[in-house]
Amino acid sequence: MTPEEFRQAGYAVVDWIADYWSTLGQRPVTSQDPPGAVAAALPAGPPAHGEPVEAVLADLDTLVTPRLTHWQHPGFFGYFPANTSGPSVLGDLVSAGLGVQGMLWATGPACTELETVLLDWLADLLGLPARMRSSATGGGVIQDSASSATLVATLVAVHRASGGRWREAGVDRRYRAYTSTQGHSSIEKAARIGGLGAEGVRLVDVDPDTQAMSPAALRTAVEADLAAGVVPAIVVATVGTTSTTAVDPLPEIGAICAEYGIFLHVDAAYAGAAAVCPELRAGHAGLEYADSYCFDPHKWLLTGFDCDAFWVADRGELIEALTVLPEYLRNAATESGAVIDYRDWQVPLGRRFRALKLWFVLRWYGVEGLRAHIRSGVALAAGFADRVRADDRFELVAPHPYALVCFRLRGDDATNEALLERVNASGRVLLTHTRVRGRHTLRLAVGSPQTTQAHVDEAWELLSHAADELTAGR
Amino acid sequence: MTPEEFRQAGYAVVDWIADYWSTLGQRPVTSQDPPGAVAAALPAGPPAHGEPVEAVLADLDTLVTPRLTHWQHPGFFGYFPANTSGPSVLGDLVSAGLGVQGMLWATGPACTELETVLLDWLADLLGLPARMRSSATGGGVIQDSASSATLVATLVAVHRASGGRWREAGVDRRYRAYTSTQGHSSIEKAARIGGLGAEGVRLVDVDPDTQAMSPAALRTAVEADLAAGVVPAIVVATVGTTSTTAVDPLPEIGAICAEYGIFLHVDAAYAGAAAVCPELRAGHAGLEYADSYCFDPHKWLLTGFDCDAFWVADRGELIEALTVLPEYLRNAATESGAVIDYRDWQVPLGRRFRALKLWFVLRWYGVEGLRAHIRSGVALAAGFADRVRADDRFELVAPHPYALVCFRLRGDDATNEALLERVNASGRVLLTHTRVRGRHTLRLAVGSPQTTQAHVDEAWELLSHAADELTAGR
Repeated sequence: MTPEEFRQAGYAVVDWIADYWSTLGQRPVTSQDPPGAVAAALPAGPPAHGEPVEAVLADLDTLVTPRLTHWQHPGFFGYFPANTSGPSVLGDLVSAGLGVQGMLWATGPACTELETVLLDWLADLLGLPARMRSSATGGGVIQDSASSATLVATLVAVHRASGGRWREAGVDRRYRAYTSTQGHSSIEKAARIGGLGAEGVRLVDVDPDTQAMSPAALRTAVEADLAAGVVPAIVVATVGTTSTTAVDPLPEIGAICAEYGIFLHVDAAYAGAAAVCPELRAGHAGLEYADSYCFDPHKWLLTGFDCDAFWVADRGELIEALTVLPEYLRNAATESGAVIDYRDWQVPLGRRFRALKLWFVLRWYGVEGLRAHIRSGVALAAGFADRVRADDRFELVAPHPYALVCFRLRGDDATNEALLERVNASGRVLLTHTRVRGRHTLRLAVGSPQTTQAHVDEAWELLSHAADELTAGR
Repeated sequence: MTPEEFRQAGYAVVDWIADYWSTLGQRPVTSQDPPGAVAAALPAGPPAHGEPVEAVLADLDTLVTPRLTHWQHPGFFGYFPANTSGPSVLGDLVSAGLGVQGMLWATGPACTELETVLLDWLADLLGLPARMRSSATGGGVIQDSASSATLVATLVAVHRASGGRWREAGVDRRYRAYTSTQGHSSIEKAARIGGLGAEGVRLVDVDPDTQAMSPAALRTAVEADLAAGVVPAIVVATVGTTSTTAVDPLPEIGAICAEYGIFLHVDAAYAGAAAVCPELRAGHAGLEYADSYCFDPHKWLLTGFDCDAFWVADRGELIEALTVLPEYLRNAATESGAVIDYRDWQVPLGRRFRALKLWFVLRWYGVEGLRAHIRSGVALAAGFADRVRADDRFELVAPHPYALVCFRLRGDDATNEALLERVNASGRVLLTHTRVRGRHTLRLAVGSPQTTQAHVDEAWELLSHAADELTAGR
């Protein structure tokens, strides 16, 4: 494809996306087709000879988009949001066009330096501790996801726990990782990948009302393990759990980690974005104890997946844990020690120029634009929670400090399952569920920049109407 | 950014990329600026209020592109290529615009099914063993990189070696991973991440002439370990090593793995792409022994990073090793067992719709177009090797079965280092180096779709001229 062919086809694809976004609100949020519909519609193999881009776009319309869950839909209230935005898409487009490989400073100097600077900007924007800046002992890096950030943190923690012997000798199965019963599944997965196994993970009890980790229970678990001769290596505390956005109390947890020399990783994958607003920064109190921290601009900060922002307080320890330097990657810049080689900050070797999409987003929206986006989500969620609170048929089941509301019909689990199914079957909205204190709970997470008061109202009306029907049918 | 604002800005970015590609050949391949030039030119923080996209594009021109290593440059002969192409960029653009999260079938049915089908297409195209198809016991998945594929293979291998106890009990430090002394650094890194440590990795000797793993040395290592009471868990064989594109003999290695029940992963990150040409498939002989296999369409198959294609022969074993299923991800489709949830095939939870770029590439080029691209690279490299062979000042130091030529000036390492430095300083080409049999060796890897005979000729002339100068100066 020549540059001129790309230019013409590129306009067509840009048009296709603009049209998709313009019509998104009219589409069903989810596909109603059974498994296998797409596979069955595809040919048995690729064509022998090339086809024009228009043919692929036509198949996108007939085969692909009708069988998607539309994450950018204004009625998408499921899971956590995975926002994107025009400027993010354009930044990613530039990255794809440049096709630069940022594994080493030498293989893409601007790719590395822009990332370092932008992560410093973001650290300022979120009010992160000073030592996480690249000008101090730490620094930030873009990971694909919070899962990978947790894995990297776990590896650095076992490296530290081993006194540096882990690189050579392997992992000691006596190391333990702690998180609350509400910690993300990626914490268990990271421990498994790192060789600790499920037996190496301690799920610490939470306060039943707040769903936040109990510092007393953490202390008890740590002391029991020490008494049993095993080694507390890492605590993963969460600011904004996936189930209910509970906030673990970092001041108390951090003090326990400091007392026992345990690595503290703070997972703020979803809620960290809120800290761009000074009034929504309370969950970060105590963050000065953290050895590492991450949040996902790709969840709630208008930056397309994949963009997890991960900081460490001590980059030397991180690099020591993960570095490998084969002959074919040796270069003068690396050996000077004056540069960052981000391959040593992550699991894979290769890396895209992901800082570009963050740059486009930060510049297009500006700080105030980002704050307006967060505040809009929080306000819409608060308004929804007010309606739940005002309706005797429903109950709120957890605090809603950000833009997720957890609620249920007063009644049994089966009724709540039926409610969720009925509302989602409308095709107008998607909500998902969790269990809180053992009971089936609905989750409504606001996040799309396309979501307005009218969409939240529609969600409430669908819920209210379905609740009427279910109550009448009982 | 509204859809209409996106449309206008999108055209401008498409134009920017088309212009970049049109002028690429006139730019220096690498930046000549010292570390810190980009960071110093950036402001202290993001703007308070938004800026237009044009402002960012202007900064791209002044700050970013002059400080890049241009991986798509026709004079880029370094490392391995990391090709992209117009259709790949467009497929990625659609993916960014859709903003779909493919962690579960339910969160993006078409995202999952298109990926499964395309990996089956690719398996046919490369002539992979039947059991790696999704219609059999196996199947394919897109990983970000071969590093991650190796890590996943290592985890499945230790899971198998443990009789399934690894998930709960953690890793046993008696497990051993084997690769040749020429295996990629990601193999050691995967073993480290998985908790085996460097002591868990056996670097098996190679044949000095071919640089391929010696099956006799592998057998000796395995038998010595068994006698010592440790457990051979995985062999990683390479088709096309990073240093010289050596091909490990899979028939003999596979037979040893089968004899001792060792998991066999085949890393064909670079060279696998060549197998789209039937005449370049010799390295795959013996692949029927493999438990898993990967290659990178993002290296030499016109598909932008990140796109590693990874197959397993037994998907049940893979899923068992990596699955986690918290309540908030439970859904009817997953519980039916009728769908693939790719989160269980990889380290992170989230995933982009990467199959789109592969789909655009396969359809735009067609099978014959892909073959023509590979054959062009092989022919250009062979022509370059002929010139090296015909010039008494130079020597070839390894076979060149694909599109990488390893060569050196007859003389000492310092002269070869000076040669490389001098040629790269021209800004017209980038070559990188390795060590073969302990000696400094230059590598010229052809791969960019923009690279023509004229560019290879220019590289040769720069080398020949610099060799004259160095010889005269001696």
